[in-house]
Amino acid sequence: MPNNAIYRLKDVGQTVTAQGFVAKVRDLGHLVFVDLRDRSGLLQLSFDADHPLKEEASQLKNESVIEVTGVLKERSNKNKEIPTGDIELLVKTLTVLSMAKTPPLMIQDDTDALEETRLKYRYLDLRRPVLQNLIRLRHDIMQATREYLNQADFLEIETPILNKSTPEGARDYVVPSRIYPDHFYALPQSPQMYKQLLMISGFEKYYQVAKCFRDEDLRRDRQPEFTQIDIEMAFAKEKDVMALAEGLVKHVFKKANQAFSDQPFDVLTYHQAMEVYGSDKPDRRFGLPLIECTELFKNNSLPLFKGKKVKAILVKEGAEKITRKLSDSWAEMINVYPETTLLVLKKEETLTGSIVKNLADDEIKGLIALGLETGDALMVVMAPDVYGPAGRLRLLMGEHFKLIDATTHDAFFVVDWPLYDYDHDAKRYVSMHHPFTAPKTLESLEDPGQALASAYDLVIDGHEVGGGSIRIHQKEVQETVFRHLGMDEKMIEEQFGFFVKAFDYGTPPHGGIAFGLDRLVMILGKTDNIRDVIAFPKTSSGQCLMSEAPGQISDHQKKELSLK
Amino acid sequence: MPNNAIYRLKDVGQTVTAQGFVAKVRDLGHLVFVDLRDRSGLLQLSFDADHPLKEEASQLKNESVIEVTGVLKERSNKNKEIPTGDIELLVKTLTVLSMAKTPPLMIQDDTDALEETRLKYRYLDLRRPVLQNLIRLRHDIMQATREYLNQADFLEIETPILNKSTPEGARDYVVPSRIYPDHFYALPQSPQMYKQLLMISGFEKYYQVAKCFRDEDLRRDRQPEFTQIDIEMAFAKEKDVMALAEGLVKHVFKKANQAFSDQPFDVLTYHQAMEVYGSDKPDRRFGLPLIECTELFKNNSLPLFKGKKVKAILVKEGAEKITRKLSDSWAEMINVYPETTLLVLKKEETLTGSIVKNLADDEIKGLIALGLETGDALMVVMAPDVYGPAGRLRLLMGEHFKLIDATTHDAFFVVDWPLYDYDHDAKRYVSMHHPFTAPKTLESLEDPGQALASAYDLVIDGHEVGGGSIRIHQKEVQETVFRHLGMDEKMIEEQFGFFVKAFDYGTPPHGGIAFGLDRLVMILGKTDNIRDVIAFPKTSSGQCLMSEAPGQISDHQKKELSLK
Repeated sequence: MPNNAIYRLKDVGQTVTAQGFVAKVRDLGHLVFVDLRDRSGLLQLSFDADHPLKEEASQLKNESVIEVTGVLKERSNKNKEIPTGDIELLVKTLTVLSMAKTPPLMIQDDTDALEETRLKYRYLDLRRPVLQNLIRLRHDIMQATREYLNQADFLEIETPILNKSTPEGARDYVVPSRIYPDHFYALPQSPQMYKQLLMISGFEKYYQVAKCFRDEDLRRDRQPEFTQIDIEMAFAKEKDVMALAEGLVKHVFKKANQAFSDQPFDVLTYHQAMEVYGSDKPDRRFGLPLIECTELFKNNSLPLFKGKKVKAILVKEGAEKITRKLSDSWAEMINVYPETTLLVLKKEETLTGSIVKNLADDEIKGLIALGLETGDALMVVMAPDVYGPAGRLRLLMGEHFKLIDATTHDAFFVVDWPLYDYDHDAKRYVSMHHPFTAPKTLESLEDPGQALASAYDLVIDGHEVGGGSIRIHQKEVQETVFRHLGMDEKMIEEQFGFFVKAFDYGTPPHGGIAFGLDRLVMILGKTDNIRDVIAFPKTSSGQCLMSEAPGQISDHQKKELSLK
Repeated sequence: MPNNAIYRLKDVGQTVTAQGFVAKVRDLGHLVFVDLRDRSGLLQLSFDADHPLKEEASQLKNESVIEVTGVLKERSNKNKEIPTGDIELLVKTLTVLSMAKTPPLMIQDDTDALEETRLKYRYLDLRRPVLQNLIRLRHDIMQATREYLNQADFLEIETPILNKSTPEGARDYVVPSRIYPDHFYALPQSPQMYKQLLMISGFEKYYQVAKCFRDEDLRRDRQPEFTQIDIEMAFAKEKDVMALAEGLVKHVFKKANQAFSDQPFDVLTYHQAMEVYGSDKPDRRFGLPLIECTELFKNNSLPLFKGKKVKAILVKEGAEKITRKLSDSWAEMINVYPETTLLVLKKEETLTGSIVKNLADDEIKGLIALGLETGDALMVVMAPDVYGPAGRLRLLMGEHFKLIDATTHDAFFVVDWPLYDYDHDAKRYVSMHHPFTAPKTLESLEDPGQALASAYDLVIDGHEVGGGSIRIHQKEVQETVFRHLGMDEKMIEEQFGFFVKAFDYGTPPHGGIAFGLDRLVMILGKTDNIRDVIAFPKTSSGQCLMSEAPGQISDHQKKELSLK
């Protein structure tokens, strides 16, 4: 295997063999230089004036694969940019192992190739050092994860890919059975039930780097298949799982050589996160907290305020910076939330803004008392459900003013989640996490709308990186939750019968967490494109542009699967 | 997390909390003992005569989950069988965390439960220590594998599960696409093309512990999904991949604490393996080599010998042991091979056997010259393709006479495979390994029937544990092989177009190997049931008896997938 970039000045005089891709050919007439690239880096090959191979070398097409032998010598023109910059290989023999056509994209970090071209020729795209490094980072993160969990005596246990279809939220990918006509396997959305069954099986500490599948309409950061670091522990309480998760994340960041605070992770309640940041996964790498103002306007009879909650964001010295054009663009972006209004107030000599003339004196006083000084601006967001638009505005402002310090990471837990969300369309509760999440207290189940969950999310840099909970381990409690979710006995039996039955034979209390590996690599690799961290990704319509999957199958195949 | 089996005599006097499953309750009237089981082992709990919890303890059902606190004390009746046998926990408090019903199977290594019951209640079956140990062994093997490959600078890279369907041998499992009606993904039979594309991408050293899928009719040692340790190396020659594979296997066996020779692995040619053992994956832990006798009978005009090859197995002192009944049963079992005859010759005063009177003197002399002494037997197998039945007979004899030393392992490579096999029904060549296998020489492709492959299998204890090859890296060679396999240009383009196109842009020579993880665990775990080494296996008809997968899906789902 080649390792061309290990050579240094001290190796001068050695005869070596090198293999790799032709990265660049420079024909200076009297001299020809070739940059040879392998996984380890670059090595310069040189062919001098009367070299019998000079002509052949000058004809080499980029990306051809060659093998050369020669003698290392000191360069006359040194290159301080690369580790092998002091030396070059004076070539004696040259073998072309594979001649390349002109590639449809340049093999360099900065590419102007269309993403479509890059995905079609993914094997060329992956040669770009930036992607090589991200795939290596992904490897490092996976291995650091295993190292930590193995050390903590966890067992990596594989759960099946061919599962039973259960309506657990998102849409399943299904696999028709050939042996049982009209029957289907489903690909797992997560190994949730299996990992709980492993606790019931007495394994106590389980993990898996698990492939999961969701047939959803894809967004920029979603893929039909994704990888989850999946963990479960028996006899564990919230604090035990959170401590493990914190230790794991710190270990992984350290192994990836990234700066990370040694301090214990903060713990925010869901309520705090929503009130202060308008988000259950806030980016705390900048300020701009939401200021609660609903109370301030409780006596205002303007229709605008009716039934609305009000949040404000104070921008010191923002009066000038926040132009009408800028605030209009923000208003447009947060108007996707229902019945949302954005007001911009500025403190100049007096408080200005379209609404000011309609405000009572004590309202104006109250606003100024929020800390408004001359030159400051105050963004006021009103909506029946104000957290969404206010949180979004905060992010837009943070991005616009470049307040985010991307050189550091901020990690914390969000706890005390509501157990349920109410679905007004379906007129029933839906699980905020999933139906196996334990309530904080059994009593709270009597008022489902108020029940809190023994659940915890791990947020890093404004992304939900991990989510988990203590699970229900009592059959009656699980059945109560299923009923709250609108399931009758028959549905419970059909969909989860085998699972709740397992609770009958001794079930340790247990809990766990799952991390999105793709997201973790994106954060550590500082990319916001999920396709950069997956070797062979799909497009947002679920296609592989390289292999052209999905494709057609033969009538014979369909017939065997009873699809015809 | 519990760790109940760590306590010893030195801990007597300590107050401890323990959690686990109730393994056994013994009510002696004045005393009650409970064996508490967790992953670490057993701890005896004791409740004495006037203990307020004695009654409750005596009522505990096996497999219930409890938490107790108490004080460790020295036992009066010590148990030398278990590590905690010198002590017991005098219980102060007892909490039943989960009361169990009577389990449908006993949680102990020796079980007489039907496999059907065990699979239905897999979470109970998995509590049996023998299965706990096999799943732990599987974990150990996976981690030892990664440890070795990470050390050797390989990158673990995930390849997709949602692939394009290509007719690469076995039947694909397919996944209907919702977005593209009448289009399907296929689950990978192996990551073969992807790992080659990773070499073309310049990663040089790849591995993956990869889930693979084949929709075949299942045999005892097959599962619809199985796990492969998948490895590929750029610029590697046969000897490089074999050296890596040998190092990996030795490391894994060492980590699993199993005796294994330090000697370099033997290398047999396919021809040698077939001639001497009648198998391409011989079990060499016993002798009974096949002796070539075709030449000896070349002048025999009996119809019996016409067009047959002849192999013999010499059994020293076998004349008495091999009864008519025994040899008849063997004959029946090898008669599944076409036109096969088994003759039994015994050397008593003279050579006896039904055929002897029809043999020429020099034939009889020749047979005796094979080493026959008084009391020996000679099993003679005749068939047009004698390797199958002769190899099978050898195994039957090895098993019957218990010649296999199961305490040792025997590992070796088989090389120099034919590139193709001829399919007489389809009247065309088929790949002996797969269509990406490189021929040993390009010239040999001119006579496909004689071409040898740059392929190597790793055999351990008579099982094919690994198989690999140097791959074709030249487009013209790959196209020639596809044509030998009966594909025309259109078929090549449709099925492998994207793949052969990649060869155009610089392809390093490369090769690799894949190990069957399930088989490796079976060998190291000394079980011949593949379901013992998989946490949640399927039956031979592809069902999960626990979850009842595959199952039905809703009409709505089918409609979304254009299946209705």
